[in-house]
Amino acid sequence: MPKITSLEPGFYRIPLPELLTDSMHGEMRAFELNTVRVRDAEGAEGVGYTFTVGRNGAAIDATLAREFPELVVGEDADLIERLWQKLWWALHYGGRGGPTVLALSAFDIALWDLKAKRAELPLWKLLGGHDPRVPCYAGGIDLLLPLDALLRQTDANLERGFRAIKMKVGRRRLAEDVERVAAIREHLGDGFPLMVDANMKWTVDEAIRAARAFQRFDPVWLEEPIVPDDVAGHARVVKEGGLPIAAGENLRTVWEFKQLIATGGVTYPEPDVTNCGGITAFMKIAHLAEAFGLPVTTHGAHDVTVHCLAAVPNRSYLEAHGFGLDRYIAEPLRIEDGFAIAPDRPGHGIAFDWKGLEKVRT
Amino acid sequence: MPKITSLEPGFYRIPLPELLTDSMHGEMRAFELNTVRVRDAEGAEGVGYTFTVGRNGAAIDATLAREFPELVVGEDADLIERLWQKLWWALHYGGRGGPTVLALSAFDIALWDLKAKRAELPLWKLLGGHDPRVPCYAGGIDLLLPLDALLRQTDANLERGFRAIKMKVGRRRLAEDVERVAAIREHLGDGFPLMVDANMKWTVDEAIRAARAFQRFDPVWLEEPIVPDDVAGHARVVKEGGLPIAAGENLRTVWEFKQLIATGGVTYPEPDVTNCGGITAFMKIAHLAEAFGLPVTTHGAHDVTVHCLAAVPNRSYLEAHGFGLDRYIAEPLRIEDGFAIAPDRPGHGIAFDWKGLEKVRT
Repeated sequence: MPKITSLEPGFYRIPLPELLTDSMHGEMRAFELNTVRVRDAEGAEGVGYTFTVGRNGAAIDATLAREFPELVVGEDADLIERLWQKLWWALHYGGRGGPTVLALSAFDIALWDLKAKRAELPLWKLLGGHDPRVPCYAGGIDLLLPLDALLRQTDANLERGFRAIKMKVGRRRLAEDVERVAAIREHLGDGFPLMVDANMKWTVDEAIRAARAFQRFDPVWLEEPIVPDDVAGHARVVKEGGLPIAAGENLRTVWEFKQLIATGGVTYPEPDVTNCGGITAFMKIAHLAEAFGLPVTTHGAHDVTVHCLAAVPNRSYLEAHGFGLDRYIAEPLRIEDGFAIAPDRPGHGIAFDWKGLEKVRT
Repeated sequence: MPKITSLEPGFYRIPLPELLTDSMHGEMRAFELNTVRVRDAEGAEGVGYTFTVGRNGAAIDATLAREFPELVVGEDADLIERLWQKLWWALHYGGRGGPTVLALSAFDIALWDLKAKRAELPLWKLLGGHDPRVPCYAGGIDLLLPLDALLRQTDANLERGFRAIKMKVGRRRLAEDVERVAAIREHLGDGFPLMVDANMKWTVDEAIRAARAFQRFDPVWLEEPIVPDDVAGHARVVKEGGLPIAAGENLRTVWEFKQLIATGGVTYPEPDVTNCGGITAFMKIAHLAEAFGLPVTTHGAHDVTVHCLAAVPNRSYLEAHGFGLDRYIAEPLRIEDGFAIAPDRPGHGIAFDWKGLEKVRT
């Protein structure tokens, strides 16, 4: 039995190479990285991580450092479901959502990494094994970029091998969004996969109006048109807006996805493995989506997530976005002709540069 | 303008006078208290607090200490809605639920206390002013108490002036629950207000079966029969169980209450002012319940909550449960002949014994 002997959290602040902006998160100058290293009695180590767009990482760190070790050290690392439930209920009253689920996600990823390493399997094969070549798109955080800079960014992404592009919408007036989407569509040509992302900017009726305005540009999906809390509102946007809707980066439980999916409020469920409850929860959400006939997409953490999508038949596009983390990873995700390639190294295959990270420890 | 000059968080561990147990939170030996003291430029101070049943207070403290001061110092303390929205969105990605909402609740309570003190009004009058005499019940956490001890506890509560009693259910077999509820009902006599609380123990169908079994004991409500996440399940329990259902102590947003209420999943919405988003969110939930024709009840923090219920016409029972905090408060809540009396002191009127608390600081 791989008994857990230690859990070591790390908390870092990663400066962004450039200022990022979307419609609701404001300006992002750095992101926070919380890591977890889990070791077992035989000396094996699993590594997990989560991140924020700049705030509340200290709460994640507090939960990982103060609560988790007492609850997991001495337990069998192979009983991931059992540990997940134990942590969920031990922390439920002051947990159930928010940063606690980000902490749980990081720990869960570490356990799956450990299990896959011990089995000498790449994670995507351990999780089911479907296809290591996962279609992916470049997700720009580019709401305030002038149009010419947006076009240059698009060309740079095409040169990097991307065959699908996402852009932000949600500027002050819808007419500005329409103008920008029109320009990018014309630049990319008909049929090129283009997504648009509003980051919860609108009311339900504003979202329906925007969706209708974007229809003629044939986007693959419109992402996060409204706040994640409004389930009934999502169902209206899907039905009345006439566009596929992606949503889920701000949902924190399988239950929240179940409600949105069962209510018909989403076309492309979009869990983030680092904030939905980890690999354990991501796989349940992906399977739930499959049962409802929906393709699953993702948010952030592309190097872990590529394994989840490579494991399931209903995968759609992987979001390629690493928030500058690639600098601290030995072998960043490979993109080839529009596909991200799930690595064949055991575990998730992410080797952090711990020495380099030490310089940005919080 | 009452400009905020400082925000001082406190984090304490309060030992419980006796071991408490319910069906899902396990054994509780201590609770965690997080306080917030907000001072304005004119020297006035508002005080807020939140608590946990024993875990994750460090995450609340981290958010209050690391994130809040930078976001609120220098702001106008009177613009509570504006500050609430600012904090919600600044922390949204790594916040939105869990301990972050407990932190926000504590801060929001402090702002309302400050505002009421400056206006020289008791909080319940500032919030609307309805009736300072609020019916209340004694909430026992007594699942594992033998029946004779349960009866003795009930008599002690009657002697303390309570005219309504809540007991825990959710023992291993439903027959045990039925036997205990029957004994207490017989002891109290027909018509005496008796509530039962399952703390999320059951599946939907188990809950319906239990509700039907309890019908003949005429409880005022059955509380938290299932997990808070299952909205559709709540609607089934209300409809098929045939008992009024109280729920909400584990919901963290107005949105979650809106979903449960609009779906017909709750009879007595039960927000906890220290974890639903503070006074600001509690009052919205109470008004939402009123619009749907539902009475509102409460969870914990009776000394703050009595003001909220004294302000609204649709108040039902206040839960009187202080988790041993009364030892650290100058004038604990007064109970007279079944009513809790909202105090007439300015603000919420809770004066903490800060020196006493210093001894249990974490």
